Amino acid sequence: MKYSQLFGKTVKDAPKDETSTNAKLLTQAGFIRKEVAGVYNFLPLGLRVVNKISNIVREEMNKAGGQEILLSALQNKESWQKSGRWNSFDALFKLASQFEKEYALGPTHEEVLVPLAQEFILSYKDLPVYLYQIQTKFRDEARAKAGILRGREFLMKDFYSFHETEKDMNDYYEKMKAAYKNIFKRLGLDAIETKAGGGTFSDFSHEYQVITEAGEDEIIYCPGGDFSENTEIAKVAEGKECDLGHGPLKKVKTIEAGNIFPLSDKFSKAFGLKFKDKDGKEKYVMMGCYGLGITRAMGTIVEVSHDDKGIIWPAAVSPFDVHLVHIEDAESEPWAKEAYEKLTDAGVDVLWDDRENATAGQKFADADLIGIPVRLVVSKKVGQGKVEWKKRASQDSEMITLDAAIQKLR
Amino acid sequence: MKYSQLFGKTVKDAPKDETSTNAKLLTQAGFIRKEVAGVYNFLPLGLRVVNKISNIVREEMNKAGGQEILLSALQNKESWQKSGRWNSFDALFKLASQFEKEYALGPTHEEVLVPLAQEFILSYKDLPVYLYQIQTKFRDEARAKAGILRGREFLMKDFYSFHETEKDMNDYYEKMKAAYKNIFKRLGLDAIETKAGGGTFSDFSHEYQVITEAGEDEIIYCPGGDFSENTEIAKVAEGKECDLGHGPLKKVKTIEAGNIFPLSDKFSKAFGLKFKDKDGKEKYVMMGCYGLGITRAMGTIVEVSHDDKGIIWPAAVSPFDVHLVHIEDAESEPWAKEAYEKLTDAGVDVLWDDRENATAGQKFADADLIGIPVRLVVSKKVGQGKVEWKKRASQDSEMITLDAAIQKLR
Repeated sequence: MKYSQLFGKTVKDAPKDETSTNAKLLTQAGFIRKEVAGVYNFLPLGLRVVNKISNIVREEMNKAGGQEILLSALQNKESWQKSGRWNSFDALFKLASQFEKEYALGPTHEEVLVPLAQEFILSYKDLPVYLYQIQTKFRDEARAKAGILRGREFLMKDFYSFHETEKDMNDYYEKMKAAYKNIFKRLGLDAIETKAGGGTFSDFSHEYQVITEAGEDEIIYCPGGDFSENTEIAKVAEGKECDLGHGPLKKVKTIEAGNIFPLSDKFSKAFGLKFKDKDGKEKYVMMGCYGLGITRAMGTIVEVSHDDKGIIWPAAVSPFDVHLVHIEDAESEPWAKEAYEKLTDAGVDVLWDDRENATAGQKFADADLIGIPVRLVVSKKVGQGKVEWKKRASQDSEMITLDAAIQKLR
Repeated sequence: MKYSQLFGKTVKDAPKDETSTNAKLLTQAGFIRKEVAGVYNFLPLGLRVVNKISNIVREEMNKAGGQEILLSALQNKESWQKSGRWNSFDALFKLASQFEKEYALGPTHEEVLVPLAQEFILSYKDLPVYLYQIQTKFRDEARAKAGILRGREFLMKDFYSFHETEKDMNDYYEKMKAAYKNIFKRLGLDAIETKAGGGTFSDFSHEYQVITEAGEDEIIYCPGGDFSENTEIAKVAEGKECDLGHGPLKKVKTIEAGNIFPLSDKFSKAFGLKFKDKDGKEKYVMMGCYGLGITRAMGTIVEVSHDDKGIIWPAAVSPFDVHLVHIEDAESEPWAKEAYEKLTDAGVDVLWDDRENATAGQKFADADLIGIPVRLVVSKKVGQGKVEWKKRASQDSEMITLDAAIQKLR
């Protein structure tokens, strides 16, 4: 992609109406634009990151046996009344039609999926089954000042598992913990598995908490890795020695980047979701649900991976593989075109800053702001057929041939 | 995928609360489930078709220079007031927050994209630019009895082009006509380019109309292919001779599967979207917009491509490449597993009916209902390493080796 043609250029100043780092940087760098408070539009650069994150999550959910579906945002009011959440779910948007109907605008999908599952789960032979979607959620949040960390409209992966027994549910819950660890590792996020309350869903849950001052959550954890609890439920105090001798427990601010719930029979009982076991006996289906905000993950990455110059994307979620910059003079400009074509032909995803009227300084500043992990510079000084390879987060650079660069990117 | 594990099995009877063929067949075959009137959930089979259609559309839009974005469903009320459509757009859902805010729940995205474009389109150097999304739309339709042909919530591709001059807009409009022809050809739909009114958008538009009795539209067209108008605007009568001598014009019922509009400066004027031309003179940006309903296309395909046994998917949008069926006896069952693994390894997407308790008749009936274009039967009669190859829409079948089948599928 040529930068001159990209919709969504960088802007000089951070937006004045944003307080969060993620919204400031993502807006300035041309990834997102605010529609109204808590609601964002994703420009081409932003959608590329969203899709990269979605695909990593999708791969891990498929590996865990998940079947992808797509449930509706407009939901049946009666199902929400049945579960008792029509009036108790704080952030529920209620949508009135002009034709005397009323809908819930989906903040989550238990009320849709459980009645649906009821049609297909009849016997133990239909279990277990694992279903998920990557879909837009709506929540009527009181506050929406955290950019894409907590929006009124956001993209989320929600996964639901259905089991014969509590043991099977618990075994699968552990399997999903492993899948979540893989996801966060691939996203470049250091997420701490943390015990938390279950809210309206379950007795307890596990959250994946990423340490940052920008977080709205707080955990008490052992830096050695064997203990973490949300302060909302923690009964231990900061400074207490970890049982395994890793030193004192720490209290830190965090972003909750994922949340998994052993629902047991909460929703099965509300909707009468039963199956016949091997002996023909009717039992309630045991369920788990597993959430992960796609756009929140994007915001979290920005919060923990940036410097004063801009964003630093992990390679796996970067909008492009390399940021190609040509500087200095007209003589070496064809070399930049040559590099662009050769890289593209080799399957490398290139953002080429081909602007004629921008200085080297402007191009470097924009490359730093946008945050693609590898910058390749073409110039007369570097020489034909060569590039200056520089990592976004490093000061060092090296002159290598274009072919060597392609090899490194594979 | 093993059919025994698939979420969303066939059901014996068509749903009683559906009147449209598409909703009946798609529900019975396990592709969709109604949430409320005009709102559908997509099961694994259904989402596969949605994704195939989306990807064909995406490829053609990218070829036409489109940059993909993702705009919000919650939209700024003030923008809708500015365009004058807050009170004039009939099917607009208005969403009230508990925090004294009100949103438009997006039925289309001019009100979002034009103000957004204003930030980035400043000079003739920023033009032309082409933007599109594949995103969920909401419309508060009075009637919703046509299944996924006309829903209250549906997936749509909407594409917007921005130009310096009316001539450039018109040239691009012709280019999009060619792209639309490619799309419908790839989707297996015979869509007639038809002149129509422009509604609240433009003076006129072009629709892509697919002939079927199930359609809500009506066109007068020349079977020779050089004339078609929506009867809403047509001034000619059925039976009149076509100017090019193709015989009498016909009046038929149709489904509108796509609609493109030369918006000119309608929205640019409403929002003050101007650019500076080469002489530094301010001019209004000329726009076009180009819609295509993804889920409507899926419904249209079912309406025109089915028989009394079920759906007949064109290969390009089929949920799987082949439907593998094992019949007769336990002895040949390992052969089915062998065929499944060999096909899958060769990159063929297989739905394998591995049910133990279903008869050959049930399996064949379900294969016909689901409508995957190629059915492969493994049985003792056919022999090890061989399959019976049968096309969904044909009575003929042939016995070929598994390797030959793989070759044919490539």
